[in-house]
Amino acid sequence: MKGYDKISGNIADRIASLRSEMEREGIDIYIVPSTDYHYSEYVGDYFKAREYMTGFTGSAGTAVFTKDKAGLWTDGRYFIQAEEELRGSGVSLYKMGEPGVDTIEEFIEKELPQKGVVGFDGRCVGVSEGNRYGKTAGERQGTLCYKYDLVGRVWKERPPLPKEKAFLLEEKYAGESVQSKLCRVRERMGAERADVHLLSSLDDIAWLLNIRGNDVAYCPLVLSYLLLYKDRVELFADEDKFPPEIQEVFRKNGVVVRPYERIAEAAASLPEQACVLLDTGRTNYALYCMLPQGVRVIDRENPEVLMKCVKNDIEVGNIKKAHIKDAVAHTRFMYWLKKEVAEQFMPEHLPLTEITVSRKLEELRAEQEGYLGPSFAPISAFAKHGAIVHYSASKESDAPLKKGGFLLTDTGGHYLEGSTDITRTVAVGEVPLKEKEDFTLVARAMLRLMNTVFLHGCSGANLDCIAREVFWKERVNFNHGTGHGVGYLTNVHEAPINFRWKEGKSPAPVLEKNMVITDEPGIYIEGSHGIRIENELLVCEDEKNGYGQFMRFEPLTFVPVDLDALLPERMTEEERDMLNDYHRRVYEAVVPYLDEEERAWLKRYTRPV
Amino acid sequence: MKGYDKISGNIADRIASLRSEMEREGIDIYIVPSTDYHYSEYVGDYFKAREYMTGFTGSAGTAVFTKDKAGLWTDGRYFIQAEEELRGSGVSLYKMGEPGVDTIEEFIEKELPQKGVVGFDGRCVGVSEGNRYGKTAGERQGTLCYKYDLVGRVWKERPPLPKEKAFLLEEKYAGESVQSKLCRVRERMGAERADVHLLSSLDDIAWLLNIRGNDVAYCPLVLSYLLLYKDRVELFADEDKFPPEIQEVFRKNGVVVRPYERIAEAAASLPEQACVLLDTGRTNYALYCMLPQGVRVIDRENPEVLMKCVKNDIEVGNIKKAHIKDAVAHTRFMYWLKKEVAEQFMPEHLPLTEITVSRKLEELRAEQEGYLGPSFAPISAFAKHGAIVHYSASKESDAPLKKGGFLLTDTGGHYLEGSTDITRTVAVGEVPLKEKEDFTLVARAMLRLMNTVFLHGCSGANLDCIAREVFWKERVNFNHGTGHGVGYLTNVHEAPINFRWKEGKSPAPVLEKNMVITDEPGIYIEGSHGIRIENELLVCEDEKNGYGQFMRFEPLTFVPVDLDALLPERMTEEERDMLNDYHRRVYEAVVPYLDEEERAWLKRYTRPV
Repeated sequence: MKGYDKISGNIADRIASLRSEMEREGIDIYIVPSTDYHYSEYVGDYFKAREYMTGFTGSAGTAVFTKDKAGLWTDGRYFIQAEEELRGSGVSLYKMGEPGVDTIEEFIEKELPQKGVVGFDGRCVGVSEGNRYGKTAGERQGTLCYKYDLVGRVWKERPPLPKEKAFLLEEKYAGESVQSKLCRVRERMGAERADVHLLSSLDDIAWLLNIRGNDVAYCPLVLSYLLLYKDRVELFADEDKFPPEIQEVFRKNGVVVRPYERIAEAAASLPEQACVLLDTGRTNYALYCMLPQGVRVIDRENPEVLMKCVKNDIEVGNIKKAHIKDAVAHTRFMYWLKKEVAEQFMPEHLPLTEITVSRKLEELRAEQEGYLGPSFAPISAFAKHGAIVHYSASKESDAPLKKGGFLLTDTGGHYLEGSTDITRTVAVGEVPLKEKEDFTLVARAMLRLMNTVFLHGCSGANLDCIAREVFWKERVNFNHGTGHGVGYLTNVHEAPINFRWKEGKSPAPVLEKNMVITDEPGIYIEGSHGIRIENELLVCEDEKNGYGQFMRFEPLTFVPVDLDALLPERMTEEERDMLNDYHRRVYEAVVPYLDEEERAWLKRYTRPV
Repeated sequence: MKGYDKISGNIADRIASLRSEMEREGIDIYIVPSTDYHYSEYVGDYFKAREYMTGFTGSAGTAVFTKDKAGLWTDGRYFIQAEEELRGSGVSLYKMGEPGVDTIEEFIEKELPQKGVVGFDGRCVGVSEGNRYGKTAGERQGTLCYKYDLVGRVWKERPPLPKEKAFLLEEKYAGESVQSKLCRVRERMGAERADVHLLSSLDDIAWLLNIRGNDVAYCPLVLSYLLLYKDRVELFADEDKFPPEIQEVFRKNGVVVRPYERIAEAAASLPEQACVLLDTGRTNYALYCMLPQGVRVIDRENPEVLMKCVKNDIEVGNIKKAHIKDAVAHTRFMYWLKKEVAEQFMPEHLPLTEITVSRKLEELRAEQEGYLGPSFAPISAFAKHGAIVHYSASKESDAPLKKGGFLLTDTGGHYLEGSTDITRTVAVGEVPLKEKEDFTLVARAMLRLMNTVFLHGCSGANLDCIAREVFWKERVNFNHGTGHGVGYLTNVHEAPINFRWKEGKSPAPVLEKNMVITDEPGIYIEGSHGIRIENELLVCEDEKNGYGQFMRFEPLTFVPVDLDALLPERMTEEERDMLNDYHRRVYEAVVPYLDEEERAWLKRYTRPV
């Protein structure tokens, strides 16, 4: 599904070529990050420079080269994979966070000659990251050179930038006209006294112009930048991508398309003294540096971020439809899996593997009308693989399903009516008691958060402990957020809302009506099993009274929580009521779309406990 | 207990005199705040300038005078009281937060002549408040004059500054020597590269020097400022207050005492270029302005704040003892009250009032060894008075107790072994079902928070919803924090920890081992009844495992939750277990100190439900 094979070739040769280029430009240390120019969660093949230079295929990691050293920095998720992939490449692995291992900055400080030059392609580096490198170089009286894409010079047969067609997201899906969105953003520009608004985040641009594309894996977005003026819009993208219906919308709304790579020039030509509204957390370093000295930067979170996070009523209606489709596909998948397992009486090994079942689920989704493809890299993990939070089955790792273990699938789909993200953990045969206990704990946490009621003003940081408390009372925890926002046919992991008790740099925003957030506690026992149960929730208004506006969640996801794995006696009466109520709604939502046999199955798997 | 009677006299004459002084100094608008020079929660009589000028006796409010207008700004708690007390004074009431009511800043903007002068005694105004007035004056091209205490000039027979003796808090109580504390603070100064540390907060000074006094109502503190240098300490306070044993400690630790009022001069004479560590949130505007221009201010929360918030093991041992004493007194009080009520068969009106029962509770506390006095203005509120969160019974309001209502007491004591803060709501006779339902809800919330388990790193902002969730599910709420830190024989409301889901300006700090915090949800039905149940909790370490350091609370307060008002059938089994476990501990803690009859009573009132 990644549409991409590991790049083969001689890493040492590539590094040698890179060093020649470094020498030619007078660069002592060259940094090769993993990102594209837009902070995308997934990157197209064109942007896999770090992989090309090291052979390491993981999603996170930064390579650093000096004239005689080559290093790759990555985090704990990838230590084993990186060790294997780097073997024989001459690139050393720097295990981030391990004691005694230098950070990139510490490495630079040690390796940079006095008055040396640190280089990188500034388009692949964020503003604060670039500033950090600048500060480090400064401590050696050194300088930065961010203008050269040296990997691009040595990369033979580099995949081209995508040429995929874009499509218009009609108003019956988007729920708001481009005109209206531009008007709202311009109001915010007015309030900030900004003359121009520079947008680099692909999802913000896609939302603003009601366009979608196919340039980034799993994210139906269009590679682009945007300059929004009070009276016009400049979109920097490949004009060939836009069909006539989009051109028509652009014409109506004063959107002029200019070549993608002209953004730097356009940024550099902004009028001196202009007030530019931009989000340094979503702008690359090179572009930021291109702005004329006299420009006044108003550094704020892009107004689009919160606007698109609050779905409009038409979007909400669509999202509900998308989730019913997804629920039908997923329920059928569970039915199919349970049946397959039940029909295999004897064999130790079932004729199913992580990858084959994942394909089945994808097939069932593809049967649904308006299905566009997976909304993120699907996870299908059996037994001990379930304990690896970001597990992705490969040909080598692909485990056959056996009776007595859990299958964890964390998958989702894009539909014209929105995007889904759902995790279910399903018992394959009879699972051990300890695993049922863990499953029940996870289910309880998920249900409690889904059923909480709160006063308007709460953020996910306030509410996260509602889910975690049941874990903490058992002295266990999980090392990921309990939930994230979900985009509408953009990024399935959408900032800024989340359920995280530890606040990040900026505090989590208030949960507002019509926001969509996941609820996905998990438990991961290394070498044994992993369990995660994930529902998407819609933030809704509840009663308003003298105490204020109360809020609650409505489930969007309607797929059974596997009763084969549940110990109802380990739940409180209130929790059992929550589960029974949820299963009643699952049944009602899905049953109209099932055949008779499936119905009977669903009835049984949504029975009250 | 306030030791203070309402000031009588002609408000109009006082205002006329003040206006003469304003005219003499060229001041157009003069502001009279409610605070002393140290942000104290309670202020001595010397500092009641706002009360002297307006007749309004509430704890919060600011008076503002122009040459022809006089206004008092106060909040919703005090609207009724202020209206009564201001009647006939010529001072208008400005109800803060009400629609259409100008803030003080808006009032100043309207009333200040161009290039006018806004005046106030800068010692009674915080740094940020002073800056705010400065900004407002600036918008009219005006200036500030913060040097004159004009009320002091017109105040005839102003009460003197207190001359109360200070006492040494011996190390068996304080648990740490002055030398050790000074050393720890100096380490922090070193880390901040500060030359001098300026302290204005009385509790921080008291903690640092192991001294206590009697200068502020309910807070056993000594009016003082402190300048901490690397090699010496200057304490600005009345030298006569210090007995020989304190003088001895001072001598050993290089503490020199200088007159209280000399602080301004000392601040003004700090060396140019000195780095001064101070806390603008705890420093008055005048003092801040006295610092020489060249001084570099390092504005940080006083290091003492977090240090004293984490109690040492000796303090914790003492605090537990203090709470047992308090629990014995309070349990006897409940026993006495229940008995008094039971013995009155017929009368509608019991021979008890809010004030008489409050006195009884105080008497029972006074019987305990080492009791020093109430730790804050006690609340004793019957029936509908309980719904007034900051109710204080006066001669006029003092309500007689009747069967069928709740008595809410929120009281506490200072002991040499620490300070207590406890609220109990007790049924006087049989209370209506609705009130029992509310009582049960409050008890459930209190118990759930007390029994939660959390990972180290959580703040009160993360955990507040554990208590509030049960309220929110019933679509009710309470408009105060669920808890506050408690000082050791200093301020019973001690920053910076709290249970508040809405973060203040700075995020709530992490809950650390040996912090003490209250757990006090409440429900307030205007005109009917109020219920609050408050336990103090000690933050403790629990299991440490691969997931991290788990934490939990231990109750410090051991007084029955009135079973006469409780509906066990409205609680979950888990909540009943929590209550029964708590009551078992109450019984064990208190029973050794009771006589036979009291024991029998306690047995019954701590029975499992």
